[in-house]
Amino acid sequence: MRDIHEKFMLRALSLARKGVGKTAPNPAVGCIIVRDGVIVGEGWHRKAGTPHAEVHALAQAGDAARGADVYVTLEPCAHHGKTPPCAKALIKTGVGRVFIGMVDPNPKVNGGGMAMLLAAGISVKSGILEEECRRLNEPFIKHVTTGRPFVILKSALTLDGKIATATGDSRWITNDRSRRYVHKLRSQMDAVMVGGRTVLADDPQLTSRVPGGKDPIRVVVDSSLRIPLNARLLHLHSSAPTLIATTSGDEAKISRLEAAGAEVLRCSGYHGHVDLDDLLRQLGERGVQSVLLEGGRELAGSALHRGIIDKFLLFYAPKIIGGEGLDPFAGPGAERIDGALRLTRIRTRRFGDDILVEGYPEAACSQV
Amino acid sequence: MRDIHEKFMLRALSLARKGVGKTAPNPAVGCIIVRDGVIVGEGWHRKAGTPHAEVHALAQAGDAARGADVYVTLEPCAHHGKTPPCAKALIKTGVGRVFIGMVDPNPKVNGGGMAMLLAAGISVKSGILEEECRRLNEPFIKHVTTGRPFVILKSALTLDGKIATATGDSRWITNDRSRRYVHKLRSQMDAVMVGGRTVLADDPQLTSRVPGGKDPIRVVVDSSLRIPLNARLLHLHSSAPTLIATTSGDEAKISRLEAAGAEVLRCSGYHGHVDLDDLLRQLGERGVQSVLLEGGRELAGSALHRGIIDKFLLFYAPKIIGGEGLDPFAGPGAERIDGALRLTRIRTRRFGDDILVEGYPEAACSQV
Repeated sequence: MRDIHEKFMLRALSLARKGVGKTAPNPAVGCIIVRDGVIVGEGWHRKAGTPHAEVHALAQAGDAARGADVYVTLEPCAHHGKTPPCAKALIKTGVGRVFIGMVDPNPKVNGGGMAMLLAAGISVKSGILEEECRRLNEPFIKHVTTGRPFVILKSALTLDGKIATATGDSRWITNDRSRRYVHKLRSQMDAVMVGGRTVLADDPQLTSRVPGGKDPIRVVVDSSLRIPLNARLLHLHSSAPTLIATTSGDEAKISRLEAAGAEVLRCSGYHGHVDLDDLLRQLGERGVQSVLLEGGRELAGSALHRGIIDKFLLFYAPKIIGGEGLDPFAGPGAERIDGALRLTRIRTRRFGDDILVEGYPEAACSQV
Repeated sequence: MRDIHEKFMLRALSLARKGVGKTAPNPAVGCIIVRDGVIVGEGWHRKAGTPHAEVHALAQAGDAARGADVYVTLEPCAHHGKTPPCAKALIKTGVGRVFIGMVDPNPKVNGGGMAMLLAAGISVKSGILEEECRRLNEPFIKHVTTGRPFVILKSALTLDGKIATATGDSRWITNDRSRRYVHKLRSQMDAVMVGGRTVLADDPQLTSRVPGGKDPIRVVVDSSLRIPLNARLLHLHSSAPTLIATTSGDEAKISRLEAAGAEVLRCSGYHGHVDLDDLLRQLGERGVQSVLLEGGRELAGSALHRGIIDKFLLFYAPKIIGGEGLDPFAGPGAERIDGALRLTRIRTRRFGDDILVEGYPEAACSQV
């Protein structure tokens, strides 16, 4: 059973969700103002540089906000950014109580907003549906606390755990609804990442294909620069760039790729390949908060063994290949069950008869 | 939204479930009697040879049954078995209307009970929550219509589809709750079946280990009779026998196994191994209605490719081996995704963070 505060926070969360994927580099935030049990103001943050959720909600509530309860998914800011601090606006209006989903992980805020409210004599309670509020802004939290993007591995498998038949056939394992969801997810991510082999084999476009959806940055991990100059993702009409991460020093190929419109990221090496941690650091410095790892199995295996995956999205289609086929992760694998990576906070979701399993590594580098 | 008839049938279903695993060779059946919207009688079939669900419910309702509505998960019987026909008892009582979950697939009944009720002027409606009522008695339905037992394949996998690490370690993939559920399931099955290699490798007991649970018949598929005479399942204190299915003519070994208390089933061959279809036929003749296929991957692969699996129970533990490991099905596997076996009527269930996926082959030989 949810208490009344959780019910109001759920509404603030559903408002916040409208902004997911559109507010970068800011987090998505929702806010409602409640007076005598009735919602008198609602708002959510729409886009960086525009008013925060609290400002929209206060404007809608008008005079009714005085003495009212405020529910906001993230701690109100206390610093002057592109907009004045929300904590100050709440104090000025004279709101009664403030209920907060999670403390802002941004070192510039981190408790500062709550302190400002408390100092003004306003009652503050945080941690309402905190888990949900954190899930909403995982990329923001990881990036603001570590400087690296939040990495989601997506894989589409048969029920016997294959991403393709032994002959390499993989079209299509999952159904339309699952694939549409992935396209929507792409449009909410700052970057999608694939290995060079996947580009050679599938020649993907990696665009979001969602009406109105923005394209993510395309990142190809191509240690030895095997990507052909006629690869489709070098010749897209897209607002987002294509980045090629490599350890190669083949300046002639690099020049040709750059001439084709790609940007080449020179990365340090790790066991003869691009060091994915160094790549993430470079992406984080460019402001990339989220990366969707889409394939193939070599990149997935490297990412798994390098420990850079923050979240797994595993789609299972109701199919059985029934023998040999391609495994989702290349590499030797754990020798003992005790040595397998454990996932926690498991959730399942259905797309028709496809099953999406979401989980987080138990010992993730980023404890968001 | 469920209508009122479905709500009452749900109650009859929950009564029927009390008998699951205890009524063989009869199906589990539940019955309620409703007068003016109030349940005045309830019953379920407890054990073969004892009264049917309808008789219990009528007895409890007494005079209130006259003109009342009857909800029964399976068509009332019309034949004299160990007890008199229930359709006749309902007519004699003078019930008003009869709502039926599913028509009895037993050729001895199959519509006969409904016809008898209709001929007596009683209103009859069948197909209320039919899917649920069928699921309740899948083994009975398969056996009574085909003479073969209903085969459930159970497998415990990591999220990357492995039943063991490359070194063969598989203890334990799933958690306590999943394993307890499997023990309960075993106690409701007529037989459990494993391959000879599994006996050699794991030396399992295959008992139900549920307080008060009955042991299933143990069937070892051992084409070349490699099972050692000191295998634990040859030396159990169990009410159920151990059967060894083989194509071997090694009479000396057969005699020794029989002397150890096992029964040896001589089966015809199929590609050099026990023909699983012939084995099922023999088990069906012995009255075995349900078989739980528990391992290993060779037997699972043979069963898959022979098309004898009626239902899949796949337990996924929130673990990733991350590379090589053992696949659930031995064999070559489909060459194209289009050639993969499709499962339908998918359901998921959680045991803590383990996920059970249930499904039925789309083109099963037994369309129960």
